Amino acid sequence: MYDRQQILSELVQTASTKIVLLLMDGVGDVPGEKDKTPLQAARKPNLDRVARESDLGQTIPVMHGVTPGSGPGHLALFGYDPVKYQIGRGILEALGSDVDVGEKDVVARANFATIQNNIVLDRRAGRPSTEESSKVVEKLSKAIQSIEDVKVSFYAGKEHRFVVKLTGEDLDDRLSDADPQKEGKPFVYTQALAPEAERTARIVNKLLDEIKRVLSDEPKMNCALMRGFSKYPNLPQFPAVYKLKAAAIATYPMYRGIARLVGMEIVQTGDTIKEEFETVKRAWNDYDFFYVHVKKTDSYGEDGNFEAKVHVIEEVDEALPILLDLQPDVLIVTGDHSTPTALKAHSWHPVPLMIHSKYARKGLSKAFDEFECARGTLGTIYAVDVMGLALAHALRLEKFGA
Amino acid sequence: MYDRQQILSELVQTASTKIVLLLMDGVGDVPGEKDKTPLQAARKPNLDRVARESDLGQTIPVMHGVTPGSGPGHLALFGYDPVKYQIGRGILEALGSDVDVGEKDVVARANFATIQNNIVLDRRAGRPSTEESSKVVEKLSKAIQSIEDVKVSFYAGKEHRFVVKLTGEDLDDRLSDADPQKEGKPFVYTQALAPEAERTARIVNKLLDEIKRVLSDEPKMNCALMRGFSKYPNLPQFPAVYKLKAAAIATYPMYRGIARLVGMEIVQTGDTIKEEFETVKRAWNDYDFFYVHVKKTDSYGEDGNFEAKVHVIEEVDEALPILLDLQPDVLIVTGDHSTPTALKAHSWHPVPLMIHSKYARKGLSKAFDEFECARGTLGTIYAVDVMGLALAHALRLEKFGA
Repeated sequence: MYDRQQILSELVQTASTKIVLLLMDGVGDVPGEKDKTPLQAARKPNLDRVARESDLGQTIPVMHGVTPGSGPGHLALFGYDPVKYQIGRGILEALGSDVDVGEKDVVARANFATIQNNIVLDRRAGRPSTEESSKVVEKLSKAIQSIEDVKVSFYAGKEHRFVVKLTGEDLDDRLSDADPQKEGKPFVYTQALAPEAERTARIVNKLLDEIKRVLSDEPKMNCALMRGFSKYPNLPQFPAVYKLKAAAIATYPMYRGIARLVGMEIVQTGDTIKEEFETVKRAWNDYDFFYVHVKKTDSYGEDGNFEAKVHVIEEVDEALPILLDLQPDVLIVTGDHSTPTALKAHSWHPVPLMIHSKYARKGLSKAFDEFECARGTLGTIYAVDVMGLALAHALRLEKFGA
Repeated sequence: MYDRQQILSELVQTASTKIVLLLMDGVGDVPGEKDKTPLQAARKPNLDRVARESDLGQTIPVMHGVTPGSGPGHLALFGYDPVKYQIGRGILEALGSDVDVGEKDVVARANFATIQNNIVLDRRAGRPSTEESSKVVEKLSKAIQSIEDVKVSFYAGKEHRFVVKLTGEDLDDRLSDADPQKEGKPFVYTQALAPEAERTARIVNKLLDEIKRVLSDEPKMNCALMRGFSKYPNLPQFPAVYKLKAAAIATYPMYRGIARLVGMEIVQTGDTIKEEFETVKRAWNDYDFFYVHVKKTDSYGEDGNFEAKVHVIEEVDEALPILLDLQPDVLIVTGDHSTPTALKAHSWHPVPLMIHSKYARKGLSKAFDEFECARGTLGTIYAVDVMGLALAHALRLEKFGA
């Protein structure tokens, strides 16, 4: 396939129209043992009313059958080919935690874990509170400033999570995860995946040993696992590519991180869905494009909590009039992937998509759910095509060819 | 589009799940002058019951509008890009007839034909019995051992068909078919399609003359047509790419041939559909993946025999409980292409697809036919994407990206 983003960037024109991308993380589901999906079970009069006035379809995030992580799921929706642009989890986590990442840095996503006789007993060290783990991060920061000539920085995250940043010359991020992935397995060191990364691997492994030494008296948080080693990727910048001043409204660091990576501005917001929508309202005059991230559809999908996922959808529905009252020229409601409660994990299933604008082929669909979307006017499309449709409905694309 | 098989191979993980790919050759059809397709006309309670618990969709074997041969139709379903991997019919026929093909060999699919005054009167020489034609193949083997310094071998096939193998140095398979394709036309020689193939073309044409000479006293089988000249292609091997121990169960040589080409193991089976399904049962513990080929939906499509095609579908339906009782984690029912009875030939029409697993978005579709599939949960996809979905439903793929 062509480089769709390149083609769009050549057709983009400015306009005064506004686009809202409401992303309900992991919203797609399967009926499983229930007879309905959460979208079908939820009472959602506003979403269903919008569906009757919208184009519906379903998206393939990466490729049929392929389950995306959050990075590729989001990048695709922002119009970035997720196979061309592959981004380590470390960088996303770092950016989302407001860690400044420079071109010479390698960052990793770290977990506190519990180890005994070199066996990883608990990959999350009993899920400490954010407060508890922050103290241990502080302890590490005091005890370890560098390994060889490489500067080491630690940044506290939520619960057992933290970020490690290495700053130095010729660092390389082609490193395997220092994580056994499963509990009951021996602790593992990182390995260089390319000869150029051998020095960085050695430094990381020295760091892992240092951390174990410093934390040896901790009852639970007595070692660290590290994953997703990555450098700062240079992505085409969303505002330049699409000529859109773009705001990101998200409650979780990871999603602010990916938005910052593509050049969106982060707008501070509260923790609830209603507060997020109120933030859109407050910033309405300052931006052309609003990416609004709802996290908990995914969280409850991963927990296998059907009722709670239904409830989050109902919460979105209830708050939706805040967005509708702003009369966005284009309102897109979709997810970055499916997270079926029956699977308790991200999945490969197509993702419901709804595009509301006055140019929609409205009238076919009766509700916003997986089945109406499967039979909607848009058909089954790749997620990377959504930005083109957003721009089109916003009358922000010139004609292709004469 | 990316090399999908490459992406899948990087995500594949092992599991204990089992996948059955039930391929009803040429099953797709069009209503034509009838009001229904054979799938709609058939009484098939089992297939329809499975459809209600499955994801349905339709596949494009190669490209919209493009009618595939059996080779590309199958390769695509096995996850091989059918444009990237183009395979001569000769090689398939040879492998299916248990002919050992080496790297220096060129093979062709041959037909006995009836010729008079250089006009091909019957391209199948009156469809001789396999026994009759085997005798004539034996006669050729005795009379012709080599042309110039190239060794020639003949292998009997079903009815009018046989295989010719040339063994020698620097043979080239870029040769046009030595077949007028229609009856009532003059006999044709092969032509080199590249300068490097000129020597091989000369040898083949000498061979064609020799065959005519040796068979000049035969009443019907008095000449040979040759098609699909090909060398042994080196394809990525299915078991290695997908980490699946794969069995092929097929009654016709051609389909065993293509399965062997991708590295599946051939399991001996009986001639009926029921016997094929019983073979799956017998081999159940020895493999992860079962490719089961039903030929006659295609044969009767090519004959334009609507009722007989309906009957084959009913026969599949009746035997289906043998497969269902094995409780495969994933059961896929589809075809490699459509063979509408109204066309009496392979066609470009999308092919019905059904994927049954406990992670299907069940509930939308009511039956397994072309129309329900066109409006199913999977949408219209390329056949090359089916393997990704098979692996996904079998929980055999890791997440892509973080």
